[in-house]
Amino acid sequence: MNDENKPSTTHTPISSLGEFGLIEHLTKHARHRHPETITGIGDDGAVIKNDEELTVLSTDLLVEGIHFDLMYTPLKHLGYKSVIVNLSDIFAMNATPKQVMVSIALSNRFSVEALTELYEGIHQACINYNVDLIGGDTSSSKSGLVISVTAIGTAAPEQVVYRNKAQEGDHIFVTGDLGAAYLGLQILEREKRIFLENPNIQPELAQHQYLVGRQLRPEARQDIISLFQQQNIVPNAMIDISDGLSSDILHICKQSNVGCSIFEENVPIHPESYHMALEFKLNPITCALSGGEDYELLFTLPSEEAKKVQDTAGFFDIGKITSIDKGTILYGKNGRADQLIAQGWKHL
Amino acid sequence: MNDENKPSTTHTPISSLGEFGLIEHLTKHARHRHPETITGIGDDGAVIKNDEELTVLSTDLLVEGIHFDLMYTPLKHLGYKSVIVNLSDIFAMNATPKQVMVSIALSNRFSVEALTELYEGIHQACINYNVDLIGGDTSSSKSGLVISVTAIGTAAPEQVVYRNKAQEGDHIFVTGDLGAAYLGLQILEREKRIFLENPNIQPELAQHQYLVGRQLRPEARQDIISLFQQQNIVPNAMIDISDGLSSDILHICKQSNVGCSIFEENVPIHPESYHMALEFKLNPITCALSGGEDYELLFTLPSEEAKKVQDTAGFFDIGKITSIDKGTILYGKNGRADQLIAQGWKHL
Repeated sequence: MNDENKPSTTHTPISSLGEFGLIEHLTKHARHRHPETITGIGDDGAVIKNDEELTVLSTDLLVEGIHFDLMYTPLKHLGYKSVIVNLSDIFAMNATPKQVMVSIALSNRFSVEALTELYEGIHQACINYNVDLIGGDTSSSKSGLVISVTAIGTAAPEQVVYRNKAQEGDHIFVTGDLGAAYLGLQILEREKRIFLENPNIQPELAQHQYLVGRQLRPEARQDIISLFQQQNIVPNAMIDISDGLSSDILHICKQSNVGCSIFEENVPIHPESYHMALEFKLNPITCALSGGEDYELLFTLPSEEAKKVQDTAGFFDIGKITSIDKGTILYGKNGRADQLIAQGWKHL
Repeated sequence: MNDENKPSTTHTPISSLGEFGLIEHLTKHARHRHPETITGIGDDGAVIKNDEELTVLSTDLLVEGIHFDLMYTPLKHLGYKSVIVNLSDIFAMNATPKQVMVSIALSNRFSVEALTELYEGIHQACINYNVDLIGGDTSSSKSGLVISVTAIGTAAPEQVVYRNKAQEGDHIFVTGDLGAAYLGLQILEREKRIFLENPNIQPELAQHQYLVGRQLRPEARQDIISLFQQQNIVPNAMIDISDGLSSDILHICKQSNVGCSIFEENVPIHPESYHMALEFKLNPITCALSGGEDYELLFTLPSEEAKKVQDTAGFFDIGKITSIDKGTILYGKNGRADQLIAQGWKHL
């Protein structure tokens, strides 16, 4: 289905390298970009120097058949995304990622070439986001591919932003349009079904580059953290939108013991998302609220601070934090007030 | 087969709690034992304070069907072991573990009760080893159970012990008998085969408690690190024996650019391991060299320092570091010299 996923012309069995040969092969290009990274791959543990600042850690597990489908996911993109989703968590703490550890479990249907592609994506993410690959674990699996990534970052103590400090009156911002990654996934699933029914039909992905790209190769919002530093802004609360706007704003409200009002008309939806949602007979706002995997940042700022960014391109003021007794409400374009509902755990 | 693995009388589907309810349920007993643990579970990232000392990190992925068989592994022991194997890596750096992050992927055949058992073991390890559970990720899996653990520790810069500083003339020590965990696994596999052939036959495990215990519920050698601190000992090189003595001493030799002489007669083998090896028609020394999963520490000390510990109960002086041109040699009881051979990657 995907050019980048065509079987490589060579297929070197992983067993030909052995575990340690494999690790060496995959990580020989790992360069340390931070003086704090004392030792990386090759010992029982990685060692990091760290004075004064706080260490911020995040970890994610990506499982084949749940988080990705290798039929339409190029391995290079998968490697890239597996790092990005963790860096996004570090940025959501207003911290700077410095290192990542990547563990992989895979079955013998994968070749060295396939794994090398996966690591190309991992290394590319490390380069683009200036982080050091410092360790991991390589293991077998009897079935699917599993990728576990832990990201390590630092921040000055006064800089770290949690989920539990949103204050009544805060403005709620998001840093980009929502729902596109979810719609990109719907397109990929549709083209997969068509392909499975008739392998001669070529998938129509070219005209949906934006949506498919948001799904397969997301970026994390490093630029927002830099902007905060330049403008001396420290949000009261922040989270990255991985589960969907509804679910994620509800995390902030629950942990901060507050309510919120979200205004549908202010929630940014890309025109392509809007049209594609209608094509799939979905409500665009539902895609934006519950789609997930946007990896935009969602943060709250008091009114005074909000003024600093209200005119910043790409920042969307979507609502306000209220007292807890006001509930967590979505105001529709028609003026109707609905309870915000978190999506359940889709996978189980 | 195993009393502790009997199906619980209640079976609460995980979907009834939802992802966040599940995390709350499993981690409500997580207590922070270190003032450095600023924030744990419940935000995008965990936050750790860390001045002066170095941070040491280690991560491991445990995959069902590869690293454990749920037919004979009580979930509580599995949770315990998944933490222990990571702490062992931190100790192998001569560092003190402070925090762990635990990620789990599982299919809907697991109940909340089953997962609670797994976490009981995780919490017990945290209590016994004085570490804080600070985060993780809970995810679905289409097939087996996957557990990914990252451990975080600290050490003074002059205290950290790497694999690459072994010096010619160093004595090589191990901290306990080897091969038992491997033989425990052979017993469990044998009893499983017998049980599958005739489910009415009860497994005979009681008389093999030591060996089976070494496999199912290993401990990490925190006591050794404490002893080093009390006696002002800093080994030149250290590693934990997870892959097997041969493979692990070869890591030290390769990274330190040295050779070694190991004397078979000095390699500690428990009498039960010895007898069980013969029962399985295996060579006891082969089990000790290549069995793996012993989680004993293997370290090297210069002669002067070696004197301090040579009479310490439980320390075994098994050989010496040589110049690289001498090779990596095992001297048998019969005086024969053989090349030490690292086991390949058994699983692929």
